[in-house]
Amino acid sequence: MISKSQIKHISSLKLLKFRKATGEFVVEGEKMVHELIMSNYKVNALYALPAWLEAHQELIRKNQLNAEKISPKELERISSFKTPNQVLATAQIPAGFDQEINFNDLILVLDDIRDPGNLGTIIRTTDWFGIRTIVCSQNTADLYNPKVLQSSMGSFMRVNVIYQDLKAFIQKARTEKVTVYGTFLNGMNIYDEKLTEKGLIIIGNESQGISPEIEKMIDKRVNIPSYSQNLTNQAESLNASVATAIICAEFRRSFNP
Amino acid sequence: MISKSQIKHISSLKLLKFRKATGEFVVEGEKMVHELIMSNYKVNALYALPAWLEAHQELIRKNQLNAEKISPKELERISSFKTPNQVLATAQIPAGFDQEINFNDLILVLDDIRDPGNLGTIIRTTDWFGIRTIVCSQNTADLYNPKVLQSSMGSFMRVNVIYQDLKAFIQKARTEKVTVYGTFLNGMNIYDEKLTEKGLIIIGNESQGISPEIEKMIDKRVNIPSYSQNLTNQAESLNASVATAIICAEFRRSFNP
Repeated sequence: MISKSQIKHISSLKLLKFRKATGEFVVEGEKMVHELIMSNYKVNALYALPAWLEAHQELIRKNQLNAEKISPKELERISSFKTPNQVLATAQIPAGFDQEINFNDLILVLDDIRDPGNLGTIIRTTDWFGIRTIVCSQNTADLYNPKVLQSSMGSFMRVNVIYQDLKAFIQKARTEKVTVYGTFLNGMNIYDEKLTEKGLIIIGNESQGISPEIEKMIDKRVNIPSYSQNLTNQAESLNASVATAIICAEFRRSFNP
Repeated sequence: MISKSQIKHISSLKLLKFRKATGEFVVEGEKMVHELIMSNYKVNALYALPAWLEAHQELIRKNQLNAEKISPKELERISSFKTPNQVLATAQIPAGFDQEINFNDLILVLDDIRDPGNLGTIIRTTDWFGIRTIVCSQNTADLYNPKVLQSSMGSFMRVNVIYQDLKAFIQKARTEKVTVYGTFLNGMNIYDEKLTEKGLIIIGNESQGISPEIEKMIDKRVNIPSYSQNLTNQAESLNASVATAIICAEFRRSFNP
């Protein structure tokens, strides 16, 4: 049984404004909540169906979790899912993430990726390819948006996602002598480029691409060739998370022949 | 001004059941509606804001379109979008698509892709790479689902998306001597394989992968390597539309050195 004010509080965390005000976010689903408990995140509370609580008594005791029993109807009210699944957790947004950036590896840079599903999918992809750092512009979708967490499939706990002023960040990166790659529809065929093992890969906004101010700072403009016979009548571009994935794959392939 | 029953009818087309019953579907947004009018699809009606109608009188007259003026409030009621955009069209689902399949090119085969966003993104990607045919299992998301159309970004008008019994289809393909590729987490590194120019690429369901019955019919099991140092703690898999894109890119790259 949870109170009306608890329901209101948890539901409010779907919105950035309330996540910022309270420093809390929500994680849902058995698998992801389990990973959350095992991670470095501080879990504030669990809200779970009786069956889940019954099955996880040991986990709750060991981790000294504050767990509340709720009904399926209550879970539905606080969930962002159409079909909520057993358990929901609230957790603390880390005040200061580890901001140490390793410039000796690839770093993904997102210049205003707005769609939460795209951001989550990109985080999942970078996790798969062992890219440990994503630097996001301040206008990129919020990491703790429920749709971002969901489509990241838990990868948000393993990838360092940092929000920074991109211009200042890229300037700093250039003093570390890393190559700055950017994706453009009129860039060079990425498969013809000799890619470097370390570097920044900049991905632009879904409809606007890379912003003019960032474009000026790019060393190599690359493009994914369509190999299509019929250039007048075909897709104009790739989805941003798809383009990111093809590029990450190609960077990794180049150094693992 | 549109009637209550029209609003009800158009809204009902968000659901597969009503699309099947009426043979109609909805396309939204200026760009996509324009492409629809220029395509082979039969447009039944347009519902547009006054400004759009004003600006497109010639288009409406030339194509003998049945266009109704509606208010922003009415558009909001019939739209699937959070922020509806100027114009919405209803169109006819083609009774029998061109079912002629060219086995001399790559064919993408979807074994129960359930997420509409994934299906739409996959259609957009195949369009980009000039893959003209997608064969879907009967349980794959419906092509005319608004989210599929939206994430395809209009590519659904250029790619032949066919729903068939996959087992029978693959059996037929094998008589045409095409190689059947399937993606598996324990498959061979795709970058080590000598890929063929034509063939079927089978993509499995988001959580279950390729079904056992289809798995038996696969010639080559392939996998996208993660190149990650830390295999015990990383993403377990890639998003289905991301994996599809990386594989399509690699097939095209192999034959365009």
